[in-house]
Amino acid sequence: MRAATYNGPGDVGVAEIAVSAPGAGEVQVSVAYTGICGTDVHIFHGAMDARVKPPATIGHECSGTIAAVGAGVSGWAVGDAVTVLPVKSCGSCTACLGGHGHICPQLIFLGIDAAGSMQNGWNVPAELLVRLPDTMNLEHAALVEPTAVAVHDVRRSGLAAGQRAVVVGGGPVGVLIALVAQSTGADVTVVELDPQRRELATKLGLRAIDPADDVTTIVAELTGGDGADVSFEVSGAQGGITTAVDVLGVRGKLVMVAIHTQPREVNLHRFFWRELEMLGARLYERRDFEAAVDHIATGRVAAAELVTGVFPLAQAAEAFAALAQGGAMKILVDCTAAESGVA
Amino acid sequence: MRAATYNGPGDVGVAEIAVSAPGAGEVQVSVAYTGICGTDVHIFHGAMDARVKPPATIGHECSGTIAAVGAGVSGWAVGDAVTVLPVKSCGSCTACLGGHGHICPQLIFLGIDAAGSMQNGWNVPAELLVRLPDTMNLEHAALVEPTAVAVHDVRRSGLAAGQRAVVVGGGPVGVLIALVAQSTGADVTVVELDPQRRELATKLGLRAIDPADDVTTIVAELTGGDGADVSFEVSGAQGGITTAVDVLGVRGKLVMVAIHTQPREVNLHRFFWRELEMLGARLYERRDFEAAVDHIATGRVAAAELVTGVFPLAQAAEAFAALAQGGAMKILVDCTAAESGVA
Repeated sequence: MRAATYNGPGDVGVAEIAVSAPGAGEVQVSVAYTGICGTDVHIFHGAMDARVKPPATIGHECSGTIAAVGAGVSGWAVGDAVTVLPVKSCGSCTACLGGHGHICPQLIFLGIDAAGSMQNGWNVPAELLVRLPDTMNLEHAALVEPTAVAVHDVRRSGLAAGQRAVVVGGGPVGVLIALVAQSTGADVTVVELDPQRRELATKLGLRAIDPADDVTTIVAELTGGDGADVSFEVSGAQGGITTAVDVLGVRGKLVMVAIHTQPREVNLHRFFWRELEMLGARLYERRDFEAAVDHIATGRVAAAELVTGVFPLAQAAEAFAALAQGGAMKILVDCTAAESGVA
Repeated sequence: MRAATYNGPGDVGVAEIAVSAPGAGEVQVSVAYTGICGTDVHIFHGAMDARVKPPATIGHECSGTIAAVGAGVSGWAVGDAVTVLPVKSCGSCTACLGGHGHICPQLIFLGIDAAGSMQNGWNVPAELLVRLPDTMNLEHAALVEPTAVAVHDVRRSGLAAGQRAVVVGGGPVGVLIALVAQSTGADVTVVELDPQRRELATKLGLRAIDPADDVTTIVAELTGGDGADVSFEVSGAQGGITTAVDVLGVRGKLVMVAIHTQPREVNLHRFFWRELEMLGARLYERRDFEAAVDHIATGRVAAAELVTGVFPLAQAAEAFAALAQGGAMKILVDCTAAESGVA
């Protein structure tokens, strides 16, 4: 078996790995595809070296089939199509006991804090499996994880049919949020700097505008002067948070999706004056994953349009390089090709 | 009749005013007491000259009795004890139609955008009246308006019995929030710079700590490591917002009460990581006023302890000066004494 490993800043390689049989309570997943996430790019650049110790098998957006079932596992059989909820919570803290294990302070994230899915034989606890329809295209299924992020974000917002949403940032997560938001019956506007990404969003049936334009005025016009009901800040930039606040109408909700690694200036007076809300949204819960499977299976999320490149595991480094070049949306690593690749 | 008027930055005087009979749909309130609010202090300093045109009769925290009833007003009689909801909304915008008239963009605030209560014969629309129990001390009743702010803020937070709250800023509104929060059965900690205000908070049965201490660690210890469920930012300072974010546990809620006139640095990563919420809270709705009357009538809010000075209307300027000296909590202007004052 082979795995793509992070070997240090700027260095992703392919290594031979010894794969043991799944332990009690585990299954072995024969990973089909693993998507490269923004977090993987951060790892690649060394920005997460405090958590990721080289050599580390990365990846957490996966699809595959069950290759082997460990002792004590019921309800799963070899050949079942699956994806994996890549988070293990402690089960005993206040967050876990409150039903929010996804924000457990002791959370172990597979692909960051433990071995991830960019490998062919991945042993994972059976309770993390999420079933896929047998007929589901496994390339598309690799998008379940980021789609679950989008489902979680939209669910946190309480967005309802007929409401108006603005998504600030039109990368993969932003576009997925926009598609999920649109599927609820909301009117959605995506704000994105990159013309190629705006073009893709438009092709997917979304309204996409350039942040260089007067976004607040455009949104006011689109909403009869009211402002948006919900905004999603997915850009990670100071300008993004400013826009996400400015477009909201009275009692509007801002969902904070992006990771802002430094404090940002926020117009708190507008929060007071319009009784705005800001809700942090992180990861997903199981029900978000299950809803994401359905979004992709039914085509409400057009996964095929979002996959802009597939590289064999042996060319994982090239996959990261392609993403760095820009213009790509979602790039997948084909883990089924592991055996035929170069070491 | 006489009124206290804002005549320009730093200048509050007393003027003779001609009082007409209440018009159709109005009543004339014989104002008993008017509290001086932080907003009145801002007006006094000229900071609100864009909205307040001298000479302007200011004041909006009042108690009184009905002196005359205009045509078409039913349900009210001369002598009824009342306070006044000092806001008029347009009734037709999205906020008003959504039941949130208190954040109507066309809101007219009596005492800012129109004549206020620091006078003896105040004609107001009957629909703004809020009934007081006949037995209620009218000095105490002048605290209904700021208590309604506190009720609204606590209601916005959803704070429940057994939860832990931190109030950052222990001035009048902060202490009122703390008392209302405590009356819900929550455990409340007040963070306040001024030792005199901490002493008063302690006397009122609240836990009061100095922001110079390690507030986050203290709150962590008080909450078994979890952090607070709710924080209220009432300080208006950069350090206050930082503290109000830092003390919160997973899914904690920050209620933004203070007016921050400039953008503030906010740790958005913590919003993401812990799925925090921030809710702007402004003014009050009628039900908040009615609950506030009950809080004061039953003594859950110890109004007598909070009134630290009463000045006759003729000495309105001295009342503002006393507040500026610091150490005071709530200072009232006795409007019943208007006739005996000097012009």
